[in-house]
Amino acid sequence: MSTPAYDNDNIFAKILRGEIPSHKIYEDELTIAFLDVMPKSDGHALVLPKNPSRNIFDTAESDLNAVIATTQKIAKAAMAAFGADGVTVQQNNEGAGGQLVFHLHFHVVPRYEGVELRPQTGEMADNDILAGHADKYRKALESL
Amino acid sequence: MSTPAYDNDNIFAKILRGEIPSHKIYEDELTIAFLDVMPKSDGHALVLPKNPSRNIFDTAESDLNAVIATTQKIAKAAMAAFGADGVTVQQNNEGAGGQLVFHLHFHVVPRYEGVELRPQTGEMADNDILAGHADKYRKALESL
Repeated sequence: MSTPAYDNDNIFAKILRGEIPSHKIYEDELTIAFLDVMPKSDGHALVLPKNPSRNIFDTAESDLNAVIATTQKIAKAAMAAFGADGVTVQQNNEGAGGQLVFHLHFHVVPRYEGVELRPQTGEMADNDILAGHADKYRKALESL
Repeated sequence: MSTPAYDNDNIFAKILRGEIPSHKIYEDELTIAFLDVMPKSDGHALVLPKNPSRNIFDTAESDLNAVIATTQKIAKAAMAAFGADGVTVQQNNEGAGGQLVFHLHFHVVPRYEGVELRPQTGEMADNDILAGHADKYRKALESL
């Protein structure tokens, strides 16, 4: 199979270049994690490799290892930070697979007993609420 | 956070021990992949570490790396084997996170333009159809 080329103008590439702000919760040499601005639940975060990668079809092994390690870290932090009862990890590939932004990312979605995920409305969450959630994550990550 | 202990009697542990059959499509030193018997789409596969791990909260780094590498391989094979238009990768943690079997597994769900995922009915797919799909996967994996 051939994967379409990486597009440097996708919104996550802009966030990685600092051209667009984000509620960053974690960063290391190869990965970054920030909050989804249209969260399906409180604490919905995204984990990305810094290196360009469209999706799982073209990701280098070292980036994939780094991203899944950070995903594990964020999933653990979500349980602690938000008192979540579980976590759904999702990673969408190509439009038919649910991918909306074409830079590889893993969704880390904290889940709460009896609480359905929010439907996609296209509305961005309140900025102050997101800032508070990012703060909770950073504190939980410090004590992991 | 503390994760409940691993239960040796979960159905995937039984498959790993060969006590229950499966439509196996791939195996290496640390991982195995077989078809989901209640597929949400044609080619819905599961990727597991052989080592015991309840979910992402207690997985060793080496197992996590091996599992994500196999997940990538199966996702690529799904595109080739089934002419899929995309792939959704999902990994559920704890009941609230959608986890039904408590041995870590990644769902690899091939997606087809305009085709919705099948709802959960609890009905198992036809065994001959699954055998045919497993064969398609094995052939595609050979030519990756």
